[in-house]
Amino acid sequence: LDKKAMEAVQTRLDSLTKPLGSLGVLEEIAKRLGGIQRNPWPEIEKKAVLVMAGDHGVVAEGVSAFPQEVTPQMFYNFLNGGAGINVLSRHAKAEVICTDVGMAFPLDPPELMRHRVMNGTHNMAQGPAMSRQEALQSLLTGAKIARQAIDSGFRVLATGEVGIGNTTPSAAIISFYTGLPAQDVTGRGTGLDDAALIHKQEVITRSIQVNQPNPQDGVDVLSKIGGLEIGALAGAILEAAHSQVPIVLDGVISTAAALIATSICPAARFYLIPSHSSVEIGHVAALKQLELKPIMHLDFRLGEGTGAAIAFHLLDASIHILKEMATFESAGVSNK
Amino acid sequence: LDKKAMEAVQTRLDSLTKPLGSLGVLEEIAKRLGGIQRNPWPEIEKKAVLVMAGDHGVVAEGVSAFPQEVTPQMFYNFLNGGAGINVLSRHAKAEVICTDVGMAFPLDPPELMRHRVMNGTHNMAQGPAMSRQEALQSLLTGAKIARQAIDSGFRVLATGEVGIGNTTPSAAIISFYTGLPAQDVTGRGTGLDDAALIHKQEVITRSIQVNQPNPQDGVDVLSKIGGLEIGALAGAILEAAHSQVPIVLDGVISTAAALIATSICPAARFYLIPSHSSVEIGHVAALKQLELKPIMHLDFRLGEGTGAAIAFHLLDASIHILKEMATFESAGVSNK
Repeated sequence: LDKKAMEAVQTRLDSLTKPLGSLGVLEEIAKRLGGIQRNPWPEIEKKAVLVMAGDHGVVAEGVSAFPQEVTPQMFYNFLNGGAGINVLSRHAKAEVICTDVGMAFPLDPPELMRHRVMNGTHNMAQGPAMSRQEALQSLLTGAKIARQAIDSGFRVLATGEVGIGNTTPSAAIISFYTGLPAQDVTGRGTGLDDAALIHKQEVITRSIQVNQPNPQDGVDVLSKIGGLEIGALAGAILEAAHSQVPIVLDGVISTAAALIATSICPAARFYLIPSHSSVEIGHVAALKQLELKPIMHLDFRLGEGTGAAIAFHLLDASIHILKEMATFESAGVSNK
Repeated sequence: LDKKAMEAVQTRLDSLTKPLGSLGVLEEIAKRLGGIQRNPWPEIEKKAVLVMAGDHGVVAEGVSAFPQEVTPQMFYNFLNGGAGINVLSRHAKAEVICTDVGMAFPLDPPELMRHRVMNGTHNMAQGPAMSRQEALQSLLTGAKIARQAIDSGFRVLATGEVGIGNTTPSAAIISFYTGLPAQDVTGRGTGLDDAALIHKQEVITRSIQVNQPNPQDGVDVLSKIGGLEIGALAGAILEAAHSQVPIVLDGVISTAAALIATSICPAARFYLIPSHSSVEIGHVAALKQLELKPIMHLDFRLGEGTGAAIAFHLLDASIHILKEMATFESAGVSNK
């Protein structure tokens, strides 16, 4: 990050009519945005949520409360503007960009499938979720989508996703990178009962044992216990970091993608902006691993990018404060 | 609160394309707003932050980092639209309504002082901060301001304040009602060093000992260890509750006012919407006493209503979700 821009932001913040540092997190965000954009006067007007869709062979193990048909149904819901992420993005003046990276069922019109890498992953409880080549393809697809968004003028991105069963590979990735056992990072997803939760934890432990991912190789981890939308989000994060564009993290799936991205390029961490901590217990563990502190506790467990879309208001607030507040001098207020 | 309206909100929320309850806090807020307004389709478009200003005789004890002149200077800053609360309210489409309930210095034009109860409180470390009549007058002034706002169509209110030294009476009120010692509820305000913090805690303990407020009598507590802007905020809370209007709580001073209000009328608690938890340690203790859970952790210590103004975005989000999301039926999504 650009230290000079961050110092300039700090100097400006300290001249505003408030006790030093008293707008806490908003000041931190403003500084971070300045550092990322290498601009003491950050521009964040155009924002987009990148929603990546994928399916998971591991649902054959019975790890989800909803059937796999729901992934494309929700995808159409996104395209029609009726989902939670659409509503929240609209009011945060952000666009939703939906990409099918690998759902299991065909889409109509077929043009919607132009970025699809494969028809859902394989069952990771029995072997790798995908080949190394497919994993790389998901990363490159996500990077390309992010690149296109940046080229069309978006200055802030956020991560979103849909994929029935995707809290399972996410928990596997988080368990693998944090070293925590499955039961400490596995939640109920869209709504599992106690027995189903225990079963899900067993499936996660088994998936890691069967596949033995190489911790030095993020692409290996992604291919063995990841997912196509997770790969695409990791790719989007890497492209955002490469292009000096801030990217706001949503929930547990997005944060698992961030673990993959930072295992490939650790410096990508500095371009991530945390939003909320969800009900999924793995989320907090993953954020901690990334040294990120959630700002909101909304008890969300929806994904889609909903927590990130809410955080857009805080990013806006931080920049409005930076640019619009009066200084001690202009307002004639005594600075001690 | 109206149970029937709350059930209607819940039924609607459960029909939307998301797992049951997966938008957590937003769903809780929508339900709460429906219950408060007795309307399954809550209207919250017009919002206002009521900023009450007052001064504190206890600053003679050296409990604040800023001089008392800053209270009117910040008041003018509010009127000119340059303060943090102005910037954040503007972008939350909320109005800022500023009232001088009892600053120490004269204002120009004198018309600005028409609601002033007295020229700042007395030093509560030596005796009551004000008389019982003055305390009642501050309560009635706040109620009147809230009433006028409600009559002009505001559907959601929030509490804000300015008053050099006002974290001291706030911590005294919180210590008194929670039974916690001063050191567990007293923070650094606008920026005290360690020695000054210990001194502030001593002043708070002494103020409670000298005055011996009657815990059964909220007006007595207010008059002895409170403040004029605290009384006005308590009055505004009572009027909002009486008029079935939700009122969003800001930081430690607002929450101390809520303790006074709920000691006078315990049911007022149901009309309070929490926003953030600030750096001031007494804030969390007071929220707990009120059985309210903060949604955001922004590390603010500015007051003014800034945390509440940010929370307006979450209230808006909750109502947008309720009113604009597609249902399982309309979107053709399988509901298990």
